[in-house]
Amino acid sequence: MNYANKNDVTFFNSTSYLDSLKKTKSNLILTNKKFSIYVPKQKKIILVKDVLLSVYKIVLLFYPNALEDIYDTTVKPIKKKSFYKLNAGKNILLGKNVKIGKNCTIGHNTIIEQNVIVSDNCQIGNNVIIKNCIIGKNTRILDGAIIGKKGFGFYPNNFKNVRYPHVGHVIIGNNVEIGSNNTIDRGSLSNTIIGDGSFLDNQVHIAHNVKIGKNCIITGQVGFAGSSTIGNRVMIGGQAGISGHLTIGDNVQIGGGSGVIKSIPSNSKVMGYPAKNIRQFLKESK
Amino acid sequence: MNYANKNDVTFFNSTSYLDSLKKTKSNLILTNKKFSIYVPKQKKIILVKDVLLSVYKIVLLFYPNALEDIYDTTVKPIKKKSFYKLNAGKNILLGKNVKIGKNCTIGHNTIIEQNVIVSDNCQIGNNVIIKNCIIGKNTRILDGAIIGKKGFGFYPNNFKNVRYPHVGHVIIGNNVEIGSNNTIDRGSLSNTIIGDGSFLDNQVHIAHNVKIGKNCIITGQVGFAGSSTIGNRVMIGGQAGISGHLTIGDNVQIGGGSGVIKSIPSNSKVMGYPAKNIRQFLKESK
Amino acid sequence: MNYANKNDVTFFNSTSYLDSLKKTKSNLILTNKKFSIYVPKQKKIILVKDVLLSVYKIVLLFYPNALEDIYDTTVKPIKKKSFYKLNAGKNILLGKNVKIGKNCTIGHNTIIEQNVIVSDNCQIGNNVIIKNCIIGKNTRILDGAIIGKKGFGFYPNNFKNVRYPHVGHVIIGNNVEIGSNNTIDRGSLSNTIIGDGSFLDNQVHIAHNVKIGKNCIITGQVGFAGSSTIGNRVMIGGQAGISGHLTIGDNVQIGGGSGVIKSIPSNSKVMGYPAKNIRQFLKESK
Repeated sequence: MNYANKNDVTFFNSTSYLDSLKKTKSNLILTNKKFSIYVPKQKKIILVKDVLLSVYKIVLLFYPNALEDIYDTTVKPIKKKSFYKLNAGKNILLGKNVKIGKNCTIGHNTIIEQNVIVSDNCQIGNNVIIKNCIIGKNTRILDGAIIGKKGFGFYPNNFKNVRYPHVGHVIIGNNVEIGSNNTIDRGSLSNTIIGDGSFLDNQVHIAHNVKIGKNCIITGQVGFAGSSTIGNRVMIGGQAGISGHLTIGDNVQIGGGSGVIKSIPSNSKVMGYPAKNIRQFLKESK
Repeated sequence: MNYANKNDVTFFNSTSYLDSLKKTKSNLILTNKKFSIYVPKQKKIILVKDVLLSVYKIVLLFYPNALEDIYDTTVKPIKKKSFYKLNAGKNILLGKNVKIGKNCTIGHNTIIEQNVIVSDNCQIGNNVIIKNCIIGKNTRILDGAIIGKKGFGFYPNNFKNVRYPHVGHVIIGNNVEIGSNNTIDRGSLSNTIIGDGSFLDNQVHIAHNVKIGKNCIITGQVGFAGSSTIGNRVMIGGQAGISGHLTIGDNVQIGGGSGVIKSIPSNSKVMGYPAKNIRQFLKESK
Repeated sequence: MNYANKNDVTFFNSTSYLDSLKKTKSNLILTNKKFSIYVPKQKKIILVKDVLLSVYKIVLLFYPNALEDIYDTTVKPIKKKSFYKLNAGKNILLGKNVKIGKNCTIGHNTIIEQNVIVSDNCQIGNNVIIKNCIIGKNTRILDGAIIGKKGFGFYPNNFKNVRYPHVGHVIIGNNVEIGSNNTIDRGSLSNTIIGDGSFLDNQVHIAHNVKIGKNCIITGQVGFAGSSTIGNRVMIGGQAGISGHLTIGDNVQIGGGSGVIKSIPSNSKVMGYPAKNIRQFLKESK
């Protein structure tokens, strides 16, 4: 809802997003009877029985391939001369309409799928796979990273494993570093975002719709469940895990191995499973 | 023992498997003096000093390459026309005697080693490596997954790192999804199994002999130690770990970050390290 | 300091390394006013304001590319006949001056960058990337491992993400096994070391400067932060994490899922987060 304009349709299915509902510019809200009472009177309502299922059906009407993620059949071996001062390795495959800025380097065996945009001065490693992604300037993507596949989102409480459509992108800022063997999924209805200047170590996993702020340091094997928002200058120690739909403030420090299951206000230092004030954790564990 | 027929030899080396010993159809049990007293009288016994070491030697007699895992020297670039309605990318290598069903897609740079069977309508991504594996219908293997290598099993209490032989396979059911950068090891003397309809997120690790039931949802960075059995419709949150030789019942829900070190009865919800009843965990950690 | 000779310059910036300062053969110590009082009188001191920043500047003078990690532009398709009894797959790329011993096997799509040394009887899998690395005899590197990239080290308390230079190597011993999709970073000013006979399972992450002893068993998804030293015959269960700058003694056993934040004396068995005596952990968690 936060990114919708007045002619966009949006949906409302949880009171956790009441704040977004009040602020949205959208004038057309898809919701059910129970939640319709929260919708401001000047907005129009599309009343449905099952909100998420309706959104699913509408999205598939517009994006019939949102659940498919087969390999890019448009790729061809890279033509180095098509790009300005490109330093490219061997066996690179580029999809249709890929844009690459000046002074980039791309390693061996890397695949960049159709419509991906890579800005100036980027360094992309070997064996990297990138799809549905826009990358800022001076950013480094290290060997073996896999970026832009559909997220792991399902209908809640549904054991038939009905996959949620993923029509979003991965938006990576300037001066970012994405570590080796990272996996970063694209957004479902919004985007997955890695802010300017943030650095990710090896084997980090970032699920769909996660927004990471600027100048963060995310250490090895950290994992983010879907749809959490991380502030600026956040430091996260190795193997920590962040649950879904949380908000982590600015300057937060999260100790290695922590399991964060609640939102954390800015300037806090936490550790533990579940994560709590770091002093309390260290005191209790003596 | 559970899969042995009357002409098969099997072995007995732990009272944890008393139940299997009673039910096995095998008439020839390899065991040591201490455990021989449990063997039903109608069975024949092969008495040895060190059961596991004897099994190791016998297996190597029949499978001299069970400890070798070098790259497949039989592979050749795929011939697309050999398969019905195959949609194949570039630089794909197929080993001898690989079978691929109709309507499959295979991404770039993927290696499928000898004797692997892929059933109809499967989608295999880029940079995937598959060996010693049978895959059901409508199953998706995402980018960078590595399936079928030998497991990480050693003789207990032996610091010389003597590797156990791995002659089993990975059996993947219908409608399964294996996530990006997953690692799934083949079984040692039985198989590693992923049941129909189960979905695995990115960076999941599944050790040798693990059996996962049907319609499970296994979230990012979850790890399974060897030989555990997981029921149907089990949901496991991100980064949880399941110790070896456990039995997890049907419909169990395991919270993110949990460390499961005991078997869990069906229909339980657990969380924590070690994992306990989820309500108790959340109460205690307030 | 431990590896410096009398003509080498070394630096001193923390009383944790007082012991090394006393033992170093180096006669020229770069340090600041505060720490200069600890330097033995017979040594010469280079006094600076910010020790780490000065080291950074000096290192970059000698190794101007220590912060660059672009793909190796010197690689060429392997010439099998250049090596004795080499068993090599397809699409292999070797950098300038790579040395490979006799009787080695190298899998498909693997990249070995310039100056890497592989000793006799090694087996290297498919899709492996190796740089800045020396590998002993009879060692196995499994599919998808990424070895030798720069570590994830920054100036402490500096939110501008200034990367520390990494001029060290990864030194892998004899009879070692490196698992699938492992990531092992090279050292910054010293080396990352994996001792003879140690075995690493899949998805293990080893940060810069970590020294692992001999005959260790490191199970799946274990992670090591930078600069820790691990003894011989150490066994570490799945998903355990070891913080930075610790010393783990010989014969230590660390239970799966543990978070180790203190050094551990030899012959201990620990488990928990933070890790403690395993009996105490299991008792407390009943």
